[in-house]
Amino acid sequence: MERLKKQMEFIVEVDKVKKIIRQTYLADSSRKENDAEHSWHLALMAVLLKEYSNEEVDLSKVVPMVLIHDLVEIDAGDTYAYDEAGAADKRSRETKAADRIFAILPEDQGSWFRALWEEFEAYETAEAKFAHVLDNCQPLLLNDASDGLSWSEHGVRKSQIYKRNERTAEGSREIWEYMKELVDKHIRLGHVINE
Amino acid sequence: MERLKKQMEFIVEVDKVKKIIRQTYLADSSRKENDAEHSWHLALMAVLLKEYSNEEVDLSKVVPMVLIHDLVEIDAGDTYAYDEAGAADKRSRETKAADRIFAILPEDQGSWFRALWEEFEAYETAEAKFAHVLDNCQPLLLNDASDGLSWSEHGVRKSQIYKRNERTAEGSREIWEYMKELVDKHIRLGHVINE
Repeated sequence: MERLKKQMEFIVEVDKVKKIIRQTYLADSSRKENDAEHSWHLALMAVLLKEYSNEEVDLSKVVPMVLIHDLVEIDAGDTYAYDEAGAADKRSRETKAADRIFAILPEDQGSWFRALWEEFEAYETAEAKFAHVLDNCQPLLLNDASDGLSWSEHGVRKSQIYKRNERTAEGSREIWEYMKELVDKHIRLGHVINE
Repeated sequence: MERLKKQMEFIVEVDKVKKIIRQTYLADSSRKENDAEHSWHLALMAVLLKEYSNEEVDLSKVVPMVLIHDLVEIDAGDTYAYDEAGAADKRSRETKAADRIFAILPEDQGSWFRALWEEFEAYETAEAKFAHVLDNCQPLLLNDASDGLSWSEHGVRKSQIYKRNERTAEGSREIWEYMKELVDKHIRLGHVINE
């Protein structure tokens, strides 16, 4: 029963990720989404879009990876994709968070989740590259649906989106092509600054 | 590109599930949770609690099943676990919703999701039984964390919880034992009516 208690404690602890608000609006523009909603969306996308990964990927790794990739933000907070100041100490804040949060689990599962999170961050394996495609693509789909609201609010430039996505094609050439067309559309519409 | 467009259209359409509000409060009692958050939680629980399933289950079926099990509520709305009037026409409302929503996907993926949803509803396979354990257990954990707020608000009786969970032990004896202890605790605390 000790093992199950630890697992249940973790499951309740990570409920807090539902309160971590991102900068992306829902498709209907009504409010910003949170990390739990975002992670649900990525897991569903992993299942549906696997066929577009450049390399064969194991969904039994990708899905848990995207389900847990933002749990560190419970302590570290969300760092907006285009926040350079926040990016500076992001790694140290998040490592400290990972130390605390994954330690709630039984040792085997805590180590597994920690390793999956490190793998995501290291951005080297086929699974990590594909997970990053999803993580970068999902806000873009929502920005498109919400008439570029988050881009307009933050005065986002094309060069920032391209920098953020400089490795997206490594994970999926086809999805990156699709995303580039969306960005072009929002440049034409004036929601993304063309520089 | 036609296939990818349909998949992306579906991914944006199901964003609406983030607006379907359930009766369960977040662990911190601050607000009610929505279907996307709930489904994220179930997927994570599937990964962590698989070892407690009475029968061996295939996570590559359970995870997509729980990720999509509430999508029909985009059109049909959420039917509270203890709402008998709403339960009466739930099936017909949800079938109509499934017809529309899964048809947005390419035919192979739409049929697959539809079959997974039907399998969940039919409650016969090992995967469906385990998915129902998670679906019943997660609100219970949140009710426990939020001092039984949703139970108190709805005047929920022990017999209703037991009726709702009459088949939970078929999926996992151990998790049902854990849940029964929680229910007992909240009967003692007066959050659940002892009848």
